Amino acid sequence: MPVKRAFWAEYAWLPAGVREGVLIETIDGIVTRVVEGVGAPPIAERLVGLTVPGLADAHSHAFHRVLRGRTQGGTGSFWTWREAMYAVAERLDPEQYRALARAVYAELALAGVTCVGEFHYLHHAPGGTRYADPNVMGEALADAAKQAGIRLTLLDTCYLAGGIGEPLAGTQVRFGDGDAERWADRAGELAGRLPTRGARLGAALHSVRAVPRDQMATVVAWAGERAVPLHAHLSEQRAENEACLAAYGCTPAQVLAEAGALGPRTSVVHATHLTPGDVDLIGAARAYACFCPTTERDLADGIGPAAALRDAGSTLTLGSDSHAVIDLFAEARAVELDERLRTQVRGHFGAAELLRAATADGHASLGWPEAGRIETGALADLTTIALDTPRLAGFEPATAAESVIFAASAGDVRHVVVGGEFVVRDRVHVLVEDVPRALDEAIREAYSTGAR
Amino acid sequence: MPVKRAFWAEYAWLPAGVREGVLIETIDGIVTRVVEGVGAPPIAERLVGLTVPGLADAHSHAFHRVLRGRTQGGTGSFWTWREAMYAVAERLDPEQYRALARAVYAELALAGVTCVGEFHYLHHAPGGTRYADPNVMGEALADAAKQAGIRLTLLDTCYLAGGIGEPLAGTQVRFGDGDAERWADRAGELAGRLPTRGARLGAALHSVRAVPRDQMATVVAWAGERAVPLHAHLSEQRAENEACLAAYGCTPAQVLAEAGALGPRTSVVHATHLTPGDVDLIGAARAYACFCPTTERDLADGIGPAAALRDAGSTLTLGSDSHAVIDLFAEARAVELDERLRTQVRGHFGAAELLRAATADGHASLGWPEAGRIETGALADLTTIALDTPRLAGFEPATAAESVIFAASAGDVRHVVVGGEFVVRDRVHVLVEDVPRALDEAIREAYSTGAR
Repeated sequence: MPVKRAFWAEYAWLPAGVREGVLIETIDGIVTRVVEGVGAPPIAERLVGLTVPGLADAHSHAFHRVLRGRTQGGTGSFWTWREAMYAVAERLDPEQYRALARAVYAELALAGVTCVGEFHYLHHAPGGTRYADPNVMGEALADAAKQAGIRLTLLDTCYLAGGIGEPLAGTQVRFGDGDAERWADRAGELAGRLPTRGARLGAALHSVRAVPRDQMATVVAWAGERAVPLHAHLSEQRAENEACLAAYGCTPAQVLAEAGALGPRTSVVHATHLTPGDVDLIGAARAYACFCPTTERDLADGIGPAAALRDAGSTLTLGSDSHAVIDLFAEARAVELDERLRTQVRGHFGAAELLRAATADGHASLGWPEAGRIETGALADLTTIALDTPRLAGFEPATAAESVIFAASAGDVRHVVVGGEFVVRDRVHVLVEDVPRALDEAIREAYSTGAR
Repeated sequence: MPVKRAFWAEYAWLPAGVREGVLIETIDGIVTRVVEGVGAPPIAERLVGLTVPGLADAHSHAFHRVLRGRTQGGTGSFWTWREAMYAVAERLDPEQYRALARAVYAELALAGVTCVGEFHYLHHAPGGTRYADPNVMGEALADAAKQAGIRLTLLDTCYLAGGIGEPLAGTQVRFGDGDAERWADRAGELAGRLPTRGARLGAALHSVRAVPRDQMATVVAWAGERAVPLHAHLSEQRAENEACLAAYGCTPAQVLAEAGALGPRTSVVHATHLTPGDVDLIGAARAYACFCPTTERDLADGIGPAAALRDAGSTLTLGSDSHAVIDLFAEARAVELDERLRTQVRGHFGAAELLRAATADGHASLGWPEAGRIETGALADLTTIALDTPRLAGFEPATAAESVIFAASAGDVRHVVVGGEFVVRDRVHVLVEDVPRALDEAIREAYSTGAR
């Protein structure tokens, strides 16, 4: 028997803009009909507020959530922060990882996220030993997403070197598969198992720091054969650029381009310190540029050329990355606001463009092209933002999207529907009983086992 | 009969740091005893979460709240935004102003703010006519603060010119008193009335744009005689600097310095585009630098030299200014995060320093030196942030202040106490029944009367 559900949105952001009184009918988790300008039928679930497509968080490292609030003392840099992050990574086991990711993904759900791209490199046991099942950590993430009720693209990440020409060191040995062939074998084995867990697979090159140039083609080919997303950190820090120029005589973007890694299924993450030539390469390849502005602020990365990338042909997506905060509205507006700080002009990205980044474009970059729009045939993934909160009060329908992008916070998310079923209802997670408590327990467990 | 109240904070941020189990006894709204490390006595009100001193919002334009979400279409600048703001200012009457400010101050209270500095220049009737009571608009603000349960410093603002050497134009005629003497007479009359409304008075020079150099001394003397705060917008936009250099041959900070306007009761607001010499002048004067980073991002102002000002001797305070968002935690962390973006180094302002900016220093800059600390003799103004939310879960007591400053949002505020009485309890405003509705009604009223 097909499962039919109907939702009635007080306001909904449709491809043509915000509309009032929108009936959304679904069968088996797919939207089958959208009708505008109607009253609520008794049978429909009422979604009071502005309903947008479920949000896509295109770049996540779930375990970094442990560090929230714990790295703000003293001075430092991305690199000193990384030491704290490695201390957490050092001893996480599959059970802890599953519990932690479940809680973090539940926090994402409460914030309106219905699909997450997990940039996953914590593959192996402490010391670098393979687990009996070498994909047990990836499986833990898939379990976690399922338990938290959100979609997952597991971006299995190739991580082979501690720097250009440097071996893995310390905690990094947990990340490495030895070479790209062995990465491909392990990840390939996961490819057959993940879809049955409701998750999809993608590939990632950690960075030009962590994947030797001559190993990249294997990963690129692997992703190409499967037509899955290929993500890579790119030029987040100037030191990466300097090391790359010194070793290879070209920029990280050029290294990716020469390895064939830039294409329309590629996402370059951060893309902060680019030359104009880099911008052109990425734009010409029609690659996604995944900005993670709250993390980029936190890690003192700098402000990337978001508008220039867009103008060159790249498509913007958004990630909460280190989860220093989890709030896709804050990420979205930060792209525009940081560009304003840099240029001292307003209006580079409009609210609709930023909402597309957070929805359709983010989903497409994660290999879910059928999600992120409220229209017939799309996945019935919906996020409803309450408009009767102190932050949104006084909005007007014509500019509801502007109000949400520029003033909402994660706590304003009222309902989240994934595949036609409530995951969050009236701000309560339906599957994870007490999300703050789950976070608390998982974080204390993870942190107590990490170095302090 | 003295009114005694006792509060027990699960965690409290005391002058020495975060402590667990803190009993705070009050009589007639003043803290009379603080005891650390105790269980909750049955008689005490339990404040579960982290209790900090009530927050001070040192720079507010209440009526700008109308514009939230309404100026994000298209491109533009500070100056095009100002046209939209003037359209709202054009027709507000005292009743509308009172209702709007009451709702905005209630939103501030829900966000943990217990004291607001209102930079008030909308003095006169449309066309510039004086109202029968020429201070009716200021009185409306005092009423509003009282009704919303928060403290107010009314920074009565001298606004005489439409630019250097230019007359007031359009809406600006509502702001002007003719000359500084007439401003002083009107504001002086208010000085006798405000304290009985629970509010305090301060003065403001709108900016070097709006107050001719030869008029400044009158305002400075007025504030000096009364020993009240003197605030001034400073170098928010490069155009102001350029006009000032062209007209006076020196920077806006130099103009203020030469007018005697820089001193330890002065707050320079924004202080975005400063020369090193300006920084030294402000620092040497021990003036406050009031940063409003969410507005400065929104208006594409740029990133001011917060750390340099601090290092030169200035004290940081925070304002939500245009109320594009109202979230003092976001303001506080933005000072540090924007500095990180600019310098690509972490750790310029610690959480304790940012919390002081949001509490004791903000209060002192508004003429409430007895507020902003949880200690014997201080005003019993308290803000409790829930720690069992998705944003704060996983915190640890030793770094609770870091967690709050870098990850909390306004919606995490659970209780607000002003003068020993609850204003917000369990996230509900005690005095304003439905804050979002009050905002909605007041904004629709104000907006429908403004040009669209």
